[in-house]
Amino acid sequence: MISEKMIKLTQGNSVIRAMFEEGKKLAAIHGHENVYDFSLGNPSIPSPSAVNAAIIDIVQNEDPISLHGYMSNIGYPEVREEVALSLNKKFDTKFDKNNIIMSVGAAGGLNVVLKTLINPGDEVIVISPFFVEYGNYVNNYDGKLVIVPACRMDFRPNPETLLAAVTKKTKAVILNSPNNPTGVVYPEETIKALAEVLEKKSKEYGSPIYIISDEPYRELVYDGINVPFIPNFYKNTIVCYSWSKSLSLPGQRIGYIALPGDLDDFDLIFDAASIATRILGYVNAPALIQRVVSRCLDEQTDIDAYDANRKLLYNGLKDLGIEAVYPQGAFYLWLKTPGSDKEFITSAKKYNLLMVPGSAFTSPGYARIAYCVSYETIERSLPAFKKLAEELKLIS
Amino acid sequence: MISEKMIKLTQGNSVIRAMFEEGKKLAAIHGHENVYDFSLGNPSIPSPSAVNAAIIDIVQNEDPISLHGYMSNIGYPEVREEVALSLNKKFDTKFDKNNIIMSVGAAGGLNVVLKTLINPGDEVIVISPFFVEYGNYVNNYDGKLVIVPACRMDFRPNPETLLAAVTKKTKAVILNSPNNPTGVVYPEETIKALAEVLEKKSKEYGSPIYIISDEPYRELVYDGINVPFIPNFYKNTIVCYSWSKSLSLPGQRIGYIALPGDLDDFDLIFDAASIATRILGYVNAPALIQRVVSRCLDEQTDIDAYDANRKLLYNGLKDLGIEAVYPQGAFYLWLKTPGSDKEFITSAKKYNLLMVPGSAFTSPGYARIAYCVSYETIERSLPAFKKLAEELKLIS
Repeated sequence: MISEKMIKLTQGNSVIRAMFEEGKKLAAIHGHENVYDFSLGNPSIPSPSAVNAAIIDIVQNEDPISLHGYMSNIGYPEVREEVALSLNKKFDTKFDKNNIIMSVGAAGGLNVVLKTLINPGDEVIVISPFFVEYGNYVNNYDGKLVIVPACRMDFRPNPETLLAAVTKKTKAVILNSPNNPTGVVYPEETIKALAEVLEKKSKEYGSPIYIISDEPYRELVYDGINVPFIPNFYKNTIVCYSWSKSLSLPGQRIGYIALPGDLDDFDLIFDAASIATRILGYVNAPALIQRVVSRCLDEQTDIDAYDANRKLLYNGLKDLGIEAVYPQGAFYLWLKTPGSDKEFITSAKKYNLLMVPGSAFTSPGYARIAYCVSYETIERSLPAFKKLAEELKLIS
Repeated sequence: MISEKMIKLTQGNSVIRAMFEEGKKLAAIHGHENVYDFSLGNPSIPSPSAVNAAIIDIVQNEDPISLHGYMSNIGYPEVREEVALSLNKKFDTKFDKNNIIMSVGAAGGLNVVLKTLINPGDEVIVISPFFVEYGNYVNNYDGKLVIVPACRMDFRPNPETLLAAVTKKTKAVILNSPNNPTGVVYPEETIKALAEVLEKKSKEYGSPIYIISDEPYRELVYDGINVPFIPNFYKNTIVCYSWSKSLSLPGQRIGYIALPGDLDDFDLIFDAASIATRILGYVNAPALIQRVVSRCLDEQTDIDAYDANRKLLYNGLKDLGIEAVYPQGAFYLWLKTPGSDKEFITSAKKYNLLMVPGSAFTSPGYARIAYCVSYETIERSLPAFKKLAEELKLIS
């Protein structure tokens, strides 16, 4: 028999990806414009034009062998240096290339970091609701996922709840702010309080508990809200970044791991992560796109468009009696379903509205709308939401 | 403490990669032209011009959101279909897109396949000498690597030796022809004899033993030699292909997994491999380069240049009394070291000749020369080899 772990996974495949595939099928039946597919975090805003300009310039001017050849597994030194300098400028850090490993998106980075840190049975804490793949990534290395619910008022992690969940087997806590699926940004006071808990427990157990900060949405925030850079508050923080959302490049698979120099066991972790990059089969982050992002470090996707979507959708749903968290970042809206989330999702599908149930994020009673779609899609979806609200007797 | 598996690996890191890094250091000291770095299989022949032309054309003409966005984890359907048709044309197979999963090179493909197949303790047979990463890939999923030596005359796998090594825990056999490090191509009679052994043992144990055919060098053969397509001889064959060498694109990380329809447990394996692609953090093979290779399926790197290198190097070493296998494919020359391979490598380094010892491929007494370098490098290296041969008293 093939891998039993994998057989189990084929039986409970990703709800998000299943929705994405279903959306494509429905679009083929009803026409793309009549299906409101809010299932996947696939950016709807094109990359800044500098991205394509960089690709063409690099392809036309770079030596063809160096352009497509191997480099060190951790990435081009000059790209890593540029990334470090850009972080220093933004966050007043003191990184250089020796703090940066280029990765196959944040998903690749998270796998490298978990492979590096985890021994079988080690516990990794996640804050619920959370990006469901964390569970698979931790399971890849036989770690144990420990789910700590966020506060149900503001969806921030609660320091006391975290404290109660830490054990001497806790190896890491994954934080994700701006958050998928809630759109919440953790403020400085939350980060400080969490850091205090982890410092205390690390000391008590005599071994470091790492924060793994998953930051694909770092630049995607609204109303000028500040996103605290966690390594500045907790030294044992490893950052996994991705340009998937900030440059609208999710298909190209590019990101980095930032390892602060004062990380406990820095040398060992850096070496192990370099090797993990190779032996997990990434070998290196895709070469061309490494060079491309290093030229686009000051570029950013058009956030105003997501902001307009956010306001239209949030206010539209509010008028229909649908409660939701007002998103501060990312491109997700987290709504409270009137009854069970599964019934809500099923009813919504009748009106070609595709969302992901909160259950998929281990938080039943909610649903996630990925509003990284066109403004017109949201405009046209509101009458469908109205019919849904009528069916659910939220409005009459 | 961080992952113990990874700590062990940091202590015995890849000899090949270490050589590559050392080569770069030596080049900085002695000048690039005075270091003969034969350590890494990094193609020296540029990609066919169609590759860069395709990149530019796609970037200029593809819808920017579709260009950089997510697609299904297994890759673009139209790319998978083109790959299938190209295989059908070459090997008279009956594939379509539902037999193809796009992968992050062959390394990514092998990890996906091993993650899909292996339960902890399952045995995976490799033919020694072998690409040393196989051991790490199998270890990623807690499989047990079983090393079966190739025949020391022709470096082909011996069916009887294989038969003796198969147990009821054998899940797969990795074959790699054209072979890294020996340059040998397995002829049809060898494939048939191995297939017979595996069919017999699969039947005896009542569970399939899969061949995983690692084929990055499939098109890199000389003198018109035929490379048998293994699925045509053994139905339970999963092919892991890479364009790293055939299109000189190793940095871009692109390949595919081909799963023949009559594979035992096909549906389960295809589903599990699709999920493994996602959860191992690849998510999908890099988007742009998927489209690029699908336009370059009939393109190929300039093999004549490698062929010229091959002849110059083989004959040059022969004249110096250094015995080697005459390479039929790939761009490696496998030589017999007069004494221990470690001493040979150390002596060679004095003349700025960098090679990988056979021990790194679990075959002491040999060394691998990667002759994917410029013709001039080989020309200029021969006097250095001459000094080495004199020191070793192979010539006087």
